[in-house]
Amino acid sequence: MKVTLQGRTRHFRTVMFDARRNAVLLIDQRLLPHEFKLVAARDFRRTAWAIQEMVVRGAGAIGATAAYGLAQGARAFHGRDAGEFRRRVETVFQTLKAARPTAIDPENAMTQVRQAMAVGETVAEQQALGLAAAEEFANEDVRHCAALGQQGAKLIRDGMNVLTHCNAGWLAFVDVGSATAPLYAAQARGIKFHVYCDETRPRSQGATLTAWELAQQGISHQIIADNAAGHLMQRGKIDLVIVGSDRTLGRTGEVTNKIGTYSKAVLAWRHGIPFYVAIPLSSIDWNLKSGMDIPIEERDGSEVLGAWGTIEAPKRRGRASKRLRRAYVRVANPTSEALNPGFDVTPAELITGIVTPAGILRPSELWARRRELGWTAALPNSVHPA
Amino acid sequence: MKVTLQGRTRHFRTVMFDARRNAVLLIDQRLLPHEFKLVAARDFRRTAWAIQEMVVRGAGAIGATAAYGLAQGARAFHGRDAGEFRRRVETVFQTLKAARPTAIDPENAMTQVRQAMAVGETVAEQQALGLAAAEEFANEDVRHCAALGQQGAKLIRDGMNVLTHCNAGWLAFVDVGSATAPLYAAQARGIKFHVYCDETRPRSQGATLTAWELAQQGISHQIIADNAAGHLMQRGKIDLVIVGSDRTLGRTGEVTNKIGTYSKAVLAWRHGIPFYVAIPLSSIDWNLKSGMDIPIEERDGSEVLGAWGTIEAPKRRGRASKRLRRAYVRVANPTSEALNPGFDVTPAELITGIVTPAGILRPSELWARRRELGWTAALPNSVHPA
Repeated sequence: MKVTLQGRTRHFRTVMFDARRNAVLLIDQRLLPHEFKLVAARDFRRTAWAIQEMVVRGAGAIGATAAYGLAQGARAFHGRDAGEFRRRVETVFQTLKAARPTAIDPENAMTQVRQAMAVGETVAEQQALGLAAAEEFANEDVRHCAALGQQGAKLIRDGMNVLTHCNAGWLAFVDVGSATAPLYAAQARGIKFHVYCDETRPRSQGATLTAWELAQQGISHQIIADNAAGHLMQRGKIDLVIVGSDRTLGRTGEVTNKIGTYSKAVLAWRHGIPFYVAIPLSSIDWNLKSGMDIPIEERDGSEVLGAWGTIEAPKRRGRASKRLRRAYVRVANPTSEALNPGFDVTPAELITGIVTPAGILRPSELWARRRELGWTAALPNSVHPA
Repeated sequence: MKVTLQGRTRHFRTVMFDARRNAVLLIDQRLLPHEFKLVAARDFRRTAWAIQEMVVRGAGAIGATAAYGLAQGARAFHGRDAGEFRRRVETVFQTLKAARPTAIDPENAMTQVRQAMAVGETVAEQQALGLAAAEEFANEDVRHCAALGQQGAKLIRDGMNVLTHCNAGWLAFVDVGSATAPLYAAQARGIKFHVYCDETRPRSQGATLTAWELAQQGISHQIIADNAAGHLMQRGKIDLVIVGSDRTLGRTGEVTNKIGTYSKAVLAWRHGIPFYVAIPLSSIDWNLKSGMDIPIEERDGSEVLGAWGTIEAPKRRGRASKRLRRAYVRVANPTSEALNPGFDVTPAELITGIVTPAGILRPSELWARRRELGWTAALPNSVHPA
């Protein structure tokens, strides 16, 4: 999407690859919205670190990062021994997978890359096929997001107020995004609407990333505290909710997403407000039989106990402009601790529809239409029931 | 309640009076939880300033502060002329009332003090009666909170997990608090339970004040993001919700409280979790006919766009210990704005019970039992319907 830096508008993807330097290039999302900077991860361990440290986050983006990371790790192998190469690739695979154990996308993406590699006869062939497969994975991510944007744009009409939670924007994918894709597509169609961005504590991705995205694209929006959505719904100020998902269960239609999504779904249900989840097909988990089986990552309490942002640093002699520096403030009582579940599960009954590149479906339709939604691909999360 | 300072445990009220120095003593709530400090307001203008600057906040606490402030202003009068004295008291009254114009408690409290003074014949008698009435107002606040604590303690059983929102603790009253009173009473009975404190963005009173209070009393607790309560309820980890209220409608049972209370009530309802509101009788509004008539204050967007806390300041030469200073970090995208409603309204249907000093009532019982709940008192917020 477009980014305006010092008055110049350029186009970026969230995840890019520099084949010459064998580096994964990432927009450093820890610095946004206060600073726009690219990080070059020059080996697969650094790429895994970038996933772990949330330099890059979001289902599609970490999928593509892992895909490139696997290709990167394979390309860094300098021998010819097929067995040694296979073990190296396995190490790379496990390292990248372990960087974000709750997510399914890195594993799916890397499995695709590894399958593509398997066709090659020599190490060099496999390395080339790996990179091509990673590139194809990234391009497909962009195509899928654009397609679901066209589907979802049908839901947005002039004058609507749309609530979104967390960031399922283009920064969460390779480009375009999932929950934001319908917004960008509606804007391109000339539709006027307003977006309320849930702040999305504790990591505030709504206030930082989604708000930054919407501001960059010139979409009318306001940030609200997570506590405010219920009140706004009660007063008739929200017409539509669109969120993303880290993992949607193909068998049950349950949706795992950032903590707080479930609360918004319950509130929307009470107020009869349509609640949509926008997802690329890659985030469907065809295997799990119940959302209660999804392990919910408990993240570090410091996220809840304080906040990251910028403060004004003291002026340096002779400089006219204010300097901003990143800082963490401890907000909470110093002798208290926090409990910090990172995700929650929204049951199908609360979801009006799932916006996919293949159309807008009821949650219960996912399983019935599984063949056209890609469940037969031999991915680790797919099963072939009798 | 007890406060441990440098290893020594002492007892404090939120609002105290030093008769010898004619000073209102207040715990400076702007510094908590990071620093515990008393402010001595030595004349009524300084007391008004303390209300205005939120050195003291919370319905009961500002009521008692205004009551003491009126007595303080009266006592500072050094003449014998009754007319001049009355004009001085009127000036004090108006000054303190203007310090927090939206609140009803200071006016109610000062009206009680002034009525008590009117019985005195000399200036000196009136001064003495004024202070006695202010002391009585403060003591009554404590008795009411203690009584509702005894009522509410019946709800808490061993092993329970209790959710609370914002701070309706002893810092919001003269002592004991409303939403926290049942917790302190249950603790005194030897009951073991755990409290989840909603962070309560945007001002984070749960993470700061409630957590500090619970830590000081040695009550097991964890701070959670406001987004996490729904998930914890879904996983069976919350057994009971207790919140306070800024204004409860005696006619409808609707409850106005800090933004986000409504969302928690909707979630509790969905999960069949009891949702209680603990209030002193003084916060019942017998006049308003609908919660939708309550004006919802829109507060400054900066509260949502960032957070206040402490950061480590650079060490000074020769000092071993870290220095902390208060700072505001801007979290949100610098080019975005916020919408910041401060309160919301929870309908009676979502409320299991109202915990009052007179017992635990269903919301619909308030009006039926209005006579014993004090609606006939000739206070500015009471009405006498035909």
